[in-house]
Amino acid sequence: MAQGTRIRLDPAARRAQLVALGVEMLGARPLEAVAIEEIAAAAGISRGLLFHYFPTKRDFHEAVVRAFTEEMLQRTAPDPALPFIDQLRNGVEAFVDYVSENSEVYISLVRGAAGGSPALQAIFEDTRAAIATRINDRLGADTSPPRVMLAIRGWVAFAEEATIHWLTDRVPELDRDGLVDLLDRSLISLVQLAVAAEPSRRGRGR
Amino acid sequence: MAQGTRIRLDPAARRAQLVALGVEMLGARPLEAVAIEEIAAAAGISRGLLFHYFPTKRDFHEAVVRAFTEEMLQRTAPDPALPFIDQLRNGVEAFVDYVSENSEVYISLVRGAAGGSPALQAIFEDTRAAIATRINDRLGADTSPPRVMLAIRGWVAFAEEATIHWLTDRVPELDRDGLVDLLDRSLISLVQLAVAAEPSRRGRGR
Repeated sequence: MAQGTRIRLDPAARRAQLVALGVEMLGARPLEAVAIEEIAAAAGISRGLLFHYFPTKRDFHEAVVRAFTEEMLQRTAPDPALPFIDQLRNGVEAFVDYVSENSEVYISLVRGAAGGSPALQAIFEDTRAAIATRINDRLGADTSPPRVMLAIRGWVAFAEEATIHWLTDRVPELDRDGLVDLLDRSLISLVQLAVAAEPSRRGRGR
Repeated sequence: MAQGTRIRLDPAARRAQLVALGVEMLGARPLEAVAIEEIAAAAGISRGLLFHYFPTKRDFHEAVVRAFTEEMLQRTAPDPALPFIDQLRNGVEAFVDYVSENSEVYISLVRGAAGGSPALQAIFEDTRAAIATRINDRLGADTSPPRVMLAIRGWVAFAEEATIHWLTDRVPELDRDGLVDLLDRSLISLVQLAVAAEPSRRGRGR
C-alpha cells in the first residue's frame, strides 16, 4: 500500500515527521479536513503504519494540535535579555504574525468548531494558561496579587478575540502595527486597573 | 408511562414548560447530566410526548441553551433612560450576578465541554455578538469606527474569562463589587485605546 519513497526512520523521527506533515496541512485547511490517507501518502508509509503510531484519528489530531500550540509558544517566547516592555511587544508581534500565517486553523481551533473534543479544548486551555503564566512571571509573580493574574487571563482572551475579529471581519483602518499597539497597550492598561482594584483603595469590604 | 399529574397544555405552553424545566436543572448541573426522562417525569408527560416536541436530545439541549442565553440578555438589558455609564454598570452587575447564580452551567457552556456541538457554540457566539452590538449602539454605532467594535468584542471575551477565573479560582481580595468595577473600567479603557488607535495619530500607514 506504500506510496512515494519509503525511507526507514526510527519511531521518534517518524512520529515527528507525521506530526510536522499534519501541522503543515493545518496551515491550509481545518483539522477535520486533514485526511489520514494523505498524511500517510505524503510520508511514503501505509495507512496501517500511521495507525501504529497514532491508534485513532483523534490521537493524531491531538498530537498535531499540541505541536501547533507548542510552536506558537516557542515563536512568542520572550528574550529575557530585553526590558519587559520590549519582551511584551515582541511577543504580541510574534503572536499576531503566527496566527495571521495560520489564520484558518487558528480560528477553527479557538472557535471549537473543528473537532471540539474536551481533549482539544484542554490543549488550548493549557496554552492560554502558559501564556498568562509567562507574562505574570515577567511582571514578578512573587509580588503580583491574584487579581493581576485574573486581568492577564482576561487579556489573553481579549487578544484572541480581537485578533480573530481583525482576521475575519477586517478592520481596514487598523493595520498589523495598529493591532499590535492596541494589544500591548491593553495589557498594560488592564494590569494597571487590576493593581488599582486593591480593596482598601476601593474602600469597600465584602 | 406518564408520571405525576398530567395537565393538558397547548403545544406552545407545553414547549415553554419543558424548556423552563431544563433551564432550572441546568442551574444545578451540566447540560450532559440533564436527562430527558427526568424532564418528562417532572412535567408529568411521557418520554414519547417529550420527543414529539423535541425530536432529538440535541434539539432539546439547544432550546434550553437558547433560553439560558436569552434570559442572560434580558437580565443584562440596560435601561435606556439612564446615562450610559449607569447602563454599563448595571449591565455588568447583572451579568456577574447571573453567571454567579448559574456558574456551573455557564462555565461548562463557555468552555465548550458540555456538548460542544457547533450549534451550541453558535448560540453562544450570537449572544456575545448581541452584547457587543448593544454596547456599540449605546456608544453611537453611527459614528464609532470598526476598531471600537473590535475592542468591544475583545472586552466581552475579557469579561467572560475574568469572571470564570473569579468564579473558579477565587480571587479572595476581589469581592463582587471589585470585579464589577474592574470590568466596567476595563471597557472604558479598551474603548479609549481603540479610539486612540486612529491611523493618523499613530502616524503609520499599512
